[in-house]
Amino acid sequence: MDEHLLPKKMALPIFASDALSSVAYAPQELLMILLTGGLAFLAFSPWIAAAVVVLLSVVVLSYRQLIKAYPSGGGDYEVARKNLGEVPGVVVAAALLVDYVLTVAVSVASGVDNIISALPGLDPARVELAIGFVVVIVLINLRGVREASLVFAIPTYVFIGSVVFMIGTGLVRTALGDPPVASSAEFAVQAESLSQAAVILLVLRAFSSGCSALTGVEAVSNGVPAFRRPKVRNAQTTLTMMGGVAILLFAGLTVLALVSGVHYAEDPCTLVGFDCENQPQPSLMAQVAAATFGMGSIPFYLIQGATALVLLLAANTAFNGFPLLGAVLARDGYAPKALNTRGDRLVFSNGMLVLGLIAIAVLVIYQANLTTLIQLYIIGVFVSFSLGQLGMVRHWRRIIRATTRIEARRDPASGIERRGAITGLVINTTGATFTATVLVIVTITKFTHGAWLVFLAIPILAMLMLGVNRYYRDVEHEIRMDDEIHFGSDGDVALVMVSRLQKPVLKALDYAVAARHDKTIALHVATDHEDADALQEEWKAHGIPLPLVIIDSPYRTYAGPIGEFIRRYREKNGPAVMTVYLPQYIVGHWWETLLHNRRSRRLAQQLMLIHGVTITLVPWLLDSSELIYGRRSRPVPGQERAGRPYDPVENFEHAEHSSLERPEL
Amino acid sequence: MDEHLLPKKMALPIFASDALSSVAYAPQELLMILLTGGLAFLAFSPWIAAAVVVLLSVVVLSYRQLIKAYPSGGGDYEVARKNLGEVPGVVVAAALLVDYVLTVAVSVASGVDNIISALPGLDPARVELAIGFVVVIVLINLRGVREASLVFAIPTYVFIGSVVFMIGTGLVRTALGDPPVASSAEFAVQAESLSQAAVILLVLRAFSSGCSALTGVEAVSNGVPAFRRPKVRNAQTTLTMMGGVAILLFAGLTVLALVSGVHYAEDPCTLVGFDCENQPQPSLMAQVAAATFGMGSIPFYLIQGATALVLLLAANTAFNGFPLLGAVLARDGYAPKALNTRGDRLVFSNGMLVLGLIAIAVLVIYQANLTTLIQLYIIGVFVSFSLGQLGMVRHWRRIIRATTRIEARRDPASGIERRGAITGLVINTTGATFTATVLVIVTITKFTHGAWLVFLAIPILAMLMLGVNRYYRDVEHEIRMDDEIHFGSDGDVALVMVSRLQKPVLKALDYAVAARHDKTIALHVATDHEDADALQEEWKAHGIPLPLVIIDSPYRTYAGPIGEFIRRYREKNGPAVMTVYLPQYIVGHWWETLLHNRRSRRLAQQLMLIHGVTITLVPWLLDSSELIYGRRSRPVPGQERAGRPYDPVENFEHAEHSSLERPEL
Repeated sequence: MDEHLLPKKMALPIFASDALSSVAYAPQELLMILLTGGLAFLAFSPWIAAAVVVLLSVVVLSYRQLIKAYPSGGGDYEVARKNLGEVPGVVVAAALLVDYVLTVAVSVASGVDNIISALPGLDPARVELAIGFVVVIVLINLRGVREASLVFAIPTYVFIGSVVFMIGTGLVRTALGDPPVASSAEFAVQAESLSQAAVILLVLRAFSSGCSALTGVEAVSNGVPAFRRPKVRNAQTTLTMMGGVAILLFAGLTVLALVSGVHYAEDPCTLVGFDCENQPQPSLMAQVAAATFGMGSIPFYLIQGATALVLLLAANTAFNGFPLLGAVLARDGYAPKALNTRGDRLVFSNGMLVLGLIAIAVLVIYQANLTTLIQLYIIGVFVSFSLGQLGMVRHWRRIIRATTRIEARRDPASGIERRGAITGLVINTTGATFTATVLVIVTITKFTHGAWLVFLAIPILAMLMLGVNRYYRDVEHEIRMDDEIHFGSDGDVALVMVSRLQKPVLKALDYAVAARHDKTIALHVATDHEDADALQEEWKAHGIPLPLVIIDSPYRTYAGPIGEFIRRYREKNGPAVMTVYLPQYIVGHWWETLLHNRRSRRLAQQLMLIHGVTITLVPWLLDSSELIYGRRSRPVPGQERAGRPYDPVENFEHAEHSSLERPEL
Repeated sequence: MDEHLLPKKMALPIFASDALSSVAYAPQELLMILLTGGLAFLAFSPWIAAAVVVLLSVVVLSYRQLIKAYPSGGGDYEVARKNLGEVPGVVVAAALLVDYVLTVAVSVASGVDNIISALPGLDPARVELAIGFVVVIVLINLRGVREASLVFAIPTYVFIGSVVFMIGTGLVRTALGDPPVASSAEFAVQAESLSQAAVILLVLRAFSSGCSALTGVEAVSNGVPAFRRPKVRNAQTTLTMMGGVAILLFAGLTVLALVSGVHYAEDPCTLVGFDCENQPQPSLMAQVAAATFGMGSIPFYLIQGATALVLLLAANTAFNGFPLLGAVLARDGYAPKALNTRGDRLVFSNGMLVLGLIAIAVLVIYQANLTTLIQLYIIGVFVSFSLGQLGMVRHWRRIIRATTRIEARRDPASGIERRGAITGLVINTTGATFTATVLVIVTITKFTHGAWLVFLAIPILAMLMLGVNRYYRDVEHEIRMDDEIHFGSDGDVALVMVSRLQKPVLKALDYAVAARHDKTIALHVATDHEDADALQEEWKAHGIPLPLVIIDSPYRTYAGPIGEFIRRYREKNGPAVMTVYLPQYIVGHWWETLLHNRRSRRLAQQLMLIHGVTITLVPWLLDSSELIYGRRSRPVPGQERAGRPYDPVENFEHAEHSSLERPEL
């Protein structure tokens, strides 16, 4: 097992793609919001970026504490559930599920945006491209890729390397007096004049958008079990490295964008001089890359390719996280059990399909529009950040209380633990304060920009989870063994449903006879008198030594007359458990199911509602099923039961103890 | 039964809505095609309209013969199948199915067009309106309306009456020197100059489009069994009346449109002076009505309302015809048997849903564009007309041959029959020649205008039907009783699947014991050792006197280890029929199925593939199921098995004959 554990140099790219890829859109969104106020507002951007960097550092430090305290990989959900209770735990789970969906949507939308920035001809197929990528990612994941493979590590390192190289080149060129100039630097911006309150709101909005750089930081805390020993230390180091790289890239890109004069507008038509009708607005990453290396140069395409790839990898990580969280929730009884079922390739395929479908729906509804999607994204992220940190505060306070008691017993080890807990408390309190403040800011600034939808979705999801939990608890209670329960059925009658005398029916009769019920009755529901008479003739002709009962069905229904027969039989002969034998076709191709009636299946469902009835399905494998299952129901050479000619007496040799006379009804 | 039969005055509106409603679009399409050549081409229109009238008369006469010869209501499908053979029969069926779909699409599109002509504000919602109407019609039909109700008769009579009144008013006004003038009369038309060949083609195309007036004529021939006695005579009279009314309306509307100068263009933007950007082009019916009575007058709205209603009724008739034909095809083995299954309200609901879905798809794909849809429509209509008539020719020739032989025996009755057959032969030969000629013309003129799709669809459908038939024949052959078949299984072992010791499992154990198998084994597939140990403890604690076998499943699969157990059991103890007991939950709400694993269902499917295995489903009705099914599986007061405290020995009193020791494996 241990050899599958990740060294730090593999863990970094695998867990960092989500967090690092967010620098592909965070600086862009930050500058874009500021620019809606006019070019002068860009002066705020270094300060806002600095605030984001501080916040990022605090969150990284906070998560180092979380890793230490909860190395099981349960993340914010586990922390909130254990420390704050069921409801906050479920709310965090709901926020995380929403986040996973939006990670996919935002990452794919940004990835496609960066591809289109390099290849503008693809612009008309934006949504289709996004859907296509989601479908490909779902298919790859359904086949069960190993997350730890090198394929996932290389693009992240290429991305880090090339972006760092670009930032370096850009800054050196600036220092040498030849700063890169973005293609949009010349465009003026239409802007309205803002009141003082509106200015503050705009700055806060820009900060909120910049906070999208923090998304994905929590990934390492969910992956601790995958690290090499010492797990906690290695995970913490990786998290710190990831934080450092993220800060470097975020700050570097923001500076370079400002230096090269990137003007990125929410509505490209407000850029005076930009032909917004006929061309897509290139992403900030593409504009910086083009300014630094030249549009169409090889490094430009390298940067765009690596950016798109790392964004798609970030989307891919959600396909690991969502199904896993779904399985944990299903195990805890908060989500349908089907999410805890592994598919053929041992992946949680149901969760993957659900995530894929919802992400596609979100991409279609929002037309893969990055800015709108990010509005939705940040809320969920900060809900789980804040509740997770709050849970950590509770956690440390509990430990401090516990060690206070133990310290009375003068245990030096608990003194060390206590000091660690106090440090943790300070860090996580700071983290909780910061993230909660940001959550308030994000809520205020983004609510009317679409975030209300997330505010609706998270409580609805949380309530659904609680409802699911109550349902499972009720069912569990209902079926639990108790001292009141007492079964003790008796009587044993087999009813073999006969529509026409064909081999599947004969097989069912044979099995019913082999099971030696007290009484075996062949039952035909007559919807057509001629058919019924013909069946009776044939029955006699083949000399089948079992009673054939024919019951009328004037309305061409089946379950009703059978139920009536069972009722009258019991009235006359006393209570008995009824086993209804139904032949079932097993087919070899999916389309064959369209050609067979679902009557037998529906009948089984209806008969199961009758008291004391069990359904026995006798399969008949059609020849076509041999293609996929390697066998069929026809006697074939070598089968035990082949080799003797048909003989009704021998065929039903066990039938003697069954009643041979027709039951009087 | 007889009182449900239709008098002529009810049969006419019910069977005629399809045929009569086609005059709402036939004159419009005829004039529209001519107008693409320029205003001068309108001079051809009386001659083309006359040709359509002649054709309509011939087809009506031909169908009178068909009614006489095949009064069973089988229509063209029956005639072609009986006289021309299987393949032509299937082709006619395919053409008819396509026709039913297009009847819905064309009628609804035209109905919506006429509604929009009266209320132009609805234009942006054209497709949505069309889909909405189809959905409403499907829902009404799923509830099972009586076709013969008065609701269906009134709109047809209102339509006939109001249109006849409009034609009369218009002609009287013209005679008095005050002809109505259409709003489009002043618009000039942009047209290209045409070569002589193109002129001929254009005239033929206009004729083809005018032939859409013939659609629906066959409806009476499918409804003969619903007529009062004498059925054939009454149906023939009704058909003739319908033909007369159709000719009157078609000719009258064409004349009135020409008199009032209606200029209806395929592309409204080619009308010089018409603001095609901001308003929809009113239908010919609306233009004539507005010219005659004044735009916005009460008679104008009456005409438009009656037209839209009769068109929607025509769509409705397809929802009677398509499922019925589907059921006939299913009965004959050419379509999935599910089409021959009546739903809860005794209607063929599957056929209705299929028709509704395909019609909606067609409406969406063609954006409810009437002209395009009509191109597709006429082909199918004339394929079934032509093959039906050809079948009739064969039919009469066979009768003539037969009567020639009998006449040798000098039977006067056969002389009369022979004379009737000769008349029939003449009429149907004329009909076949005419309709086949029109089919050729329609094919030539419409092929590139979308009809190729129908030429693809009909053979594909026909081939699918033949394939379905071959499939059913093969299955029938495979399961047929023959002298080679010999069953005779023995051995009888019950395996009761136990996951946890809960009431549903206890019920399954109880039923298995009640069935007194030779051997009853409780089987637990252990995916978790702790759970397995706990189960074993509980098993002992409850003193259940049945062997509990625990088998390991290292890969968390179920079917594999169970199959392996069965194999090894049989190796050791000889062959035996294995009955696997699976507890099944029955739930009360659809959403509960989402919350229960499909594991048991999947397991049943997989185990049925193992040789000699039957599946017994033991239902456990959850409390919630009481809401809809009125019972649940918990012991309730009054149930036979309630009233005694739990006692393992009494509970399993029949278990003594089962092996109590754990089987060695």
